[in-house]
Amino acid sequence: ADWIFLMILGFIMAVFSFTMDIFVDLFTETHRWIYDLADSHVVLQYLAWVAYSLFLMCFAAGFANIVSVQAAGSGIPETKTSLRGVMLQEYFTFKTLVSKVISLTCVLGSELPVGKEGPFVHVGSVCAALLCKFMSLFSGIYKNKARNEEMLTVGCAVGIGCCFAAPIGGALFSLEVTSMFFVARNYWRGFLSATFGSFIFRLLPVWNRQEETLTALYATKYRLDFPFDLQELPIFAAMGIVCGFGGAFFVYLYGKISLFVKKQKATNSFLMKNCFLYSALVSVLISTLTFPPGFGQFMAGRLTQRDSLISFFDNRTWSNHCIVADFDHDDHLAAWKHPQANVFVILSAFVIMKFWMSALSITLPIPCGSFVPIFVIGAAFGRLVGEGLATLFPDGFNIDGHIYHIVPGAYAVIGAAALTAGVTHTISTGVIMMELTGQINYALPILISVILANMVSQSLQPSIYDTVIRIKKLPYLPMLSWGHREKYDIYVEDFMKREVRYITLNSTYRDVIKILRSGNLKTLPLVKSAESMLLLGSVERAQLLGLLMQRLQHLREENASTMPVRYKVHFQTSTEESASASTTKPLKSALKKPSVDEEEITSVYDSGLNLKKFFCSRPDIEAMEVRHPAHTNVLQKFTIEEWEEQQMDEQVNFNSCKIDPAPFQLVERTSLHKTHTMFSVLNLDYAYVTSIGRLVGVVSLKELREAIEGCMPADGVRLRPVMSTFRDRGVRGTRTETIELHQLLEHQIS
Amino acid sequence: ADWIFLMILGFIMAVFSFTMDIFVDLFTETHRWIYDLADSHVVLQYLAWVAYSLFLMCFAAGFANIVSVQAAGSGIPETKTSLRGVMLQEYFTFKTLVSKVISLTCVLGSELPVGKEGPFVHVGSVCAALLCKFMSLFSGIYKNKARNEEMLTVGCAVGIGCCFAAPIGGALFSLEVTSMFFVARNYWRGFLSATFGSFIFRLLPVWNRQEETLTALYATKYRLDFPFDLQELPIFAAMGIVCGFGGAFFVYLYGKISLFVKKQKATNSFLMKNCFLYSALVSVLISTLTFPPGFGQFMAGRLTQRDSLISFFDNRTWSNHCIVADFDHDDHLAAWKHPQANVFVILSAFVIMKFWMSALSITLPIPCGSFVPIFVIGAAFGRLVGEGLATLFPDGFNIDGHIYHIVPGAYAVIGAAALTAGVTHTISTGVIMMELTGQINYALPILISVILANMVSQSLQPSIYDTVIRIKKLPYLPMLSWGHREKYDIYVEDFMKREVRYITLNSTYRDVIKILRSGNLKTLPLVKSAESMLLLGSVERAQLLGLLMQRLQHLREENASTMPVRYKVHFQTSTEESASASTTKPLKSALKKPSVDEEEITSVYDSGLNLKKFFCSRPDIEAMEVRHPAHTNVLQKFTIEEWEEQQMDEQVNFNSCKIDPAPFQLVERTSLHKTHTMFSVLNLDYAYVTSIGRLVGVVSLKELREAIEGCMPADGVRLRPVMSTFRDRGVRGTRTETIELHQLLEHQIS
Repeated sequence: ADWIFLMILGFIMAVFSFTMDIFVDLFTETHRWIYDLADSHVVLQYLAWVAYSLFLMCFAAGFANIVSVQAAGSGIPETKTSLRGVMLQEYFTFKTLVSKVISLTCVLGSELPVGKEGPFVHVGSVCAALLCKFMSLFSGIYKNKARNEEMLTVGCAVGIGCCFAAPIGGALFSLEVTSMFFVARNYWRGFLSATFGSFIFRLLPVWNRQEETLTALYATKYRLDFPFDLQELPIFAAMGIVCGFGGAFFVYLYGKISLFVKKQKATNSFLMKNCFLYSALVSVLISTLTFPPGFGQFMAGRLTQRDSLISFFDNRTWSNHCIVADFDHDDHLAAWKHPQANVFVILSAFVIMKFWMSALSITLPIPCGSFVPIFVIGAAFGRLVGEGLATLFPDGFNIDGHIYHIVPGAYAVIGAAALTAGVTHTISTGVIMMELTGQINYALPILISVILANMVSQSLQPSIYDTVIRIKKLPYLPMLSWGHREKYDIYVEDFMKREVRYITLNSTYRDVIKILRSGNLKTLPLVKSAESMLLLGSVERAQLLGLLMQRLQHLREENASTMPVRYKVHFQTSTEESASASTTKPLKSALKKPSVDEEEITSVYDSGLNLKKFFCSRPDIEAMEVRHPAHTNVLQKFTIEEWEEQQMDEQVNFNSCKIDPAPFQLVERTSLHKTHTMFSVLNLDYAYVTSIGRLVGVVSLKELREAIEGCMPADGVRLRPVMSTFRDRGVRGTRTETIELHQLLEHQIS
Repeated sequence: ADWIFLMILGFIMAVFSFTMDIFVDLFTETHRWIYDLADSHVVLQYLAWVAYSLFLMCFAAGFANIVSVQAAGSGIPETKTSLRGVMLQEYFTFKTLVSKVISLTCVLGSELPVGKEGPFVHVGSVCAALLCKFMSLFSGIYKNKARNEEMLTVGCAVGIGCCFAAPIGGALFSLEVTSMFFVARNYWRGFLSATFGSFIFRLLPVWNRQEETLTALYATKYRLDFPFDLQELPIFAAMGIVCGFGGAFFVYLYGKISLFVKKQKATNSFLMKNCFLYSALVSVLISTLTFPPGFGQFMAGRLTQRDSLISFFDNRTWSNHCIVADFDHDDHLAAWKHPQANVFVILSAFVIMKFWMSALSITLPIPCGSFVPIFVIGAAFGRLVGEGLATLFPDGFNIDGHIYHIVPGAYAVIGAAALTAGVTHTISTGVIMMELTGQINYALPILISVILANMVSQSLQPSIYDTVIRIKKLPYLPMLSWGHREKYDIYVEDFMKREVRYITLNSTYRDVIKILRSGNLKTLPLVKSAESMLLLGSVERAQLLGLLMQRLQHLREENASTMPVRYKVHFQTSTEESASASTTKPLKSALKKPSVDEEEITSVYDSGLNLKKFFCSRPDIEAMEVRHPAHTNVLQKFTIEEWEEQQMDEQVNFNSCKIDPAPFQLVERTSLHKTHTMFSVLNLDYAYVTSIGRLVGVVSLKELREAIEGCMPADGVRLRPVMSTFRDRGVRGTRTETIELHQLLEHQIS
């Protein structure tokens, strides 16, 4: 049944992608139609050009903000976080899906330089999650959390596969971007689903009579016999390096703009109130600049992203004067021809303007991907280099009597792949590029420039997705990248947190309340006793709260029956009163309007007081309906206080509490490397460190992250002279994972 | 420094691959030259044809067997096992490398239908391992075991990358075939190294003036504008399904032949003695059948594998009578033309003959890969289908006035990819195919047929590599493939071994000897006491043997100094005697020639006796030189016996013993899914199951394997009516990982 699921997913995504493309085309065609309609006056034309974009943009921003805020942004960083095991709320709902798809269509229609790839990863994951939920009606297996997380990865693969009709690249990209470990299972599923999705995605235009047969999305027709000369390789490599710097700069620029906007938002209440005023401003700015009769004429403003890509990948050489005549016949190419400026000026203007426009656009609170705009910029840069070379060497290469001209389109392909690789830190962009153009004979130059771009940009900046994760302060785990030799010599004992908050089997209610108050931990370790520290398991916060509630309930009942007479009278009264007064009210409302009597009591009734204070400070249980006794009578104040104290000091009865007997455990000598592996593979948030069953520490994502990042700065290891490693070897060698028994027993108490 | 390592590795492998190709070409050209030289008489020609192959074959088999037996076979299964953490002895040595490279060249030169891909994976890993060893002279990091294992994966990627000039496919294939979890790090390294390797591999022919520029290895030139019609898709899909069955049958056939040969070898002492007689027989058989004037004329016997592939991928249609004239001009194509038989007969004969020949050849004890022969057979099958269709529909497709003929070469490409995928159970064969031909416009048909072939063959047979692993009885871990819904409901407690052999802190020497004798376990758990069962760590077998040796030594010294007088006299005598008699001899020789007196004593000296028996039964320490007391005097027999008993019952002193305090631990409620993940990711062989620090069981690879395979047969789950899952859901839902405290405490003793 798995493959049926995967095929349905692929089919749905293909239909989504195809339909969205049709609507986006419709929007952009309407845009041009309105623009042409208003050709009587340039101001009218300008208004038509800008207002159309502005309207779509405002609609998109408003729709995204009203229906589901989670729809904003690329979606890849959030999906990555979710796959790390930290499920984001409301992120995989039908509402988010609708919001994302509709506002993405509008954003793309408004011709903002953003892409659909990132959002499609999100759409794919949402579809996978919803489909899982739907299928769970028929089969229990779809209720499994681990399995559903695996399906999210598949959703990503399909998303990209259907966006570019690139199943291989899509499956790889999703794995590279979202996970640190690729499970073979997922790889399979991703391939199957993405292939089927791409197939349907390319089949629909054929059925729709738009195309003759299944081809690549931006099919190119470069010569097969002599794709490139060896002398061109250094240029390809240099392009890779430049694109690496460019990619890193893009990420840097994005980060700066993003932080600036955030700061502004925090201070500027006006922007805060009008969440889409910012979007509107950016939309007006960008559409003004691209206005074809205005500055747009110097940056091919009237071309859509798709049209620009097609023209960049074109087989012809623009700067070659012999075929300039062709320009007029081809609408796309004509945009690059200008009476005053030559093709290099226009291309440079395009690259520079689109660069900051894209970085600005993806900071907007709308669904937007950075992949396609970067792609276009890279292609423009490559075309610029290619045209330059074609002008410098108009005669091409003479190999054994054959003349081979330089193919500027191929430079565009390589530039696009390299710049995207520099921004996303992936290799699979190269594969996507090959599938997108339907030609693989530039495989080696593409791979070389992609790898070089990666090497440069990885050493300068985190990837665009990791930057978003950091800016949005989502939980993440840095990658143990290659070249960090230090990581093999660090053990859990070096970075674990030794002060663990725990509860014991003998914990009193007072202790439990104190611990619950002291932090936000979702689970707490349960040990046998403070002396032995034997780890029994972990208890969820909610379970403990439940225990406390139960206890209060129980006390009330006990008061009513088994209390000594002098208390009984008092409590019975209070209970009856409370029964009529506050039993049906939630605690929140009860606390908001306390009577004077109640307040007096609560200050005396320590147990009630503590709990209440605790409830107040913890919003997560405010909504709980607690029927606790409200005491109206301050009789025998002192004795009651004693009794309360006594009650607080009683041991918690854990019998009705669900305990997870298998919290993940590490030992002190587990290496950082192994810990990182386990955290990544098993999507752990925390793990207890035990020594012979004794709890000695805890490692959470935070500690691990700090440990990894702490070993990253050059602590001299890289810069030391080559021979110094000889000296160290002895020391390194002795630090094995084995220890001697006396060391072991020293640790042991019981 | 990592990337320098990766580039060096890529460079070395590229040079290996290129040099090997040159030598293989030389061998095959010589073969044809000798054959042409002897054209005076057909018998002479036959002898020349067969003897040449036979000579190379015998040399290869002899060389492989004499220099290093580990060189035999494909190498992928063994590398896979090594990457699973089970390091095979002598498998990554320089001797093995030399043996593999030289005999592989000879085998390929002898024109046996085997490939170099599998062996190149092995060569790549050996190179990586040796390079790691070499680099460890300069940097301590290369001593790290985990890191070196990661480098083995890179070696695999480079091996394939350099074989086919397919960096992407190579990196993916190595990951797919060798590991269940792809670490992003390795993916990177694999890509970098394989790209550089492929680059050099393709650069060398250009420098060597063989080629003009970097192109694909088997570059094809199919039309770009209309690669295939939609109507052809069902045929491609059907080819995928047929290839899936074919692949499964190939694996089945290989398994049958392999087991048959193994059985024969065990009984037939003649074959046993002459390990390469079998190779010689097969060689004669195959070269007889391919003898061009004989049966070879019906199966293009005079073409090498490379030539056949080139002719299969050819752009022309063979069965089209218009261009039959071309056949005579092209030497490769002429082989497929026969006056009596048409092209279909020859292609069918080729497919059938090569099929069993390849299955037979890869069972030989020589270096041989199954990838390329399968590839060739698949291409032949595809060409057969393509030619058939071209004959049936000679007019091709008429789309909007354009006539598009069927391209039989494309069918060959798809057939090759699908059949290889069916045998190896990988998707990346599709990618390799695209890189190999340098054309990606058949991406979708290739992927669809590859996925279908995988689906069919995976449901019928394990992959060829897993079959080899099973036949060679190497340790392995089956994959949790998709569709096994049961796996999510199984926990460690369901399949762990509860009878754990352990040693305690109070263990006596008698206990330790008993435990060591009772099994082959490499490590033993150390618990605090048999009552508490608190797991302290694990001790290696070698450490325990060391302790026993120490004890003997200590006893001897004690005898000489602190013994009561009546023992002292006796022991001193015996010690002195033994000092002169057996101290310098290894135990083995001492036991082989025991004097009568010694035997009498050993039967009395229980301690010595037990140890000796133990030593005899355990070959791993026979070579140890043990200076244990040899007693020649049977004085006070009874008292000594008592003393010996006393010594045996003394507690072992673990102080000088290295203990691993961090053996991997699971708990009873860990799911099978999680366990499998951890075993695969961390390359575990075993893990202890603990409950609150108490050792309650052990899970080894064997138990895990049985658990996974146990849940595979249809236990009714798949065949149950759809609605029955509704009923189960309640039950499934309650089986969570949490338990209640009283259950937890029931488990607990201490």
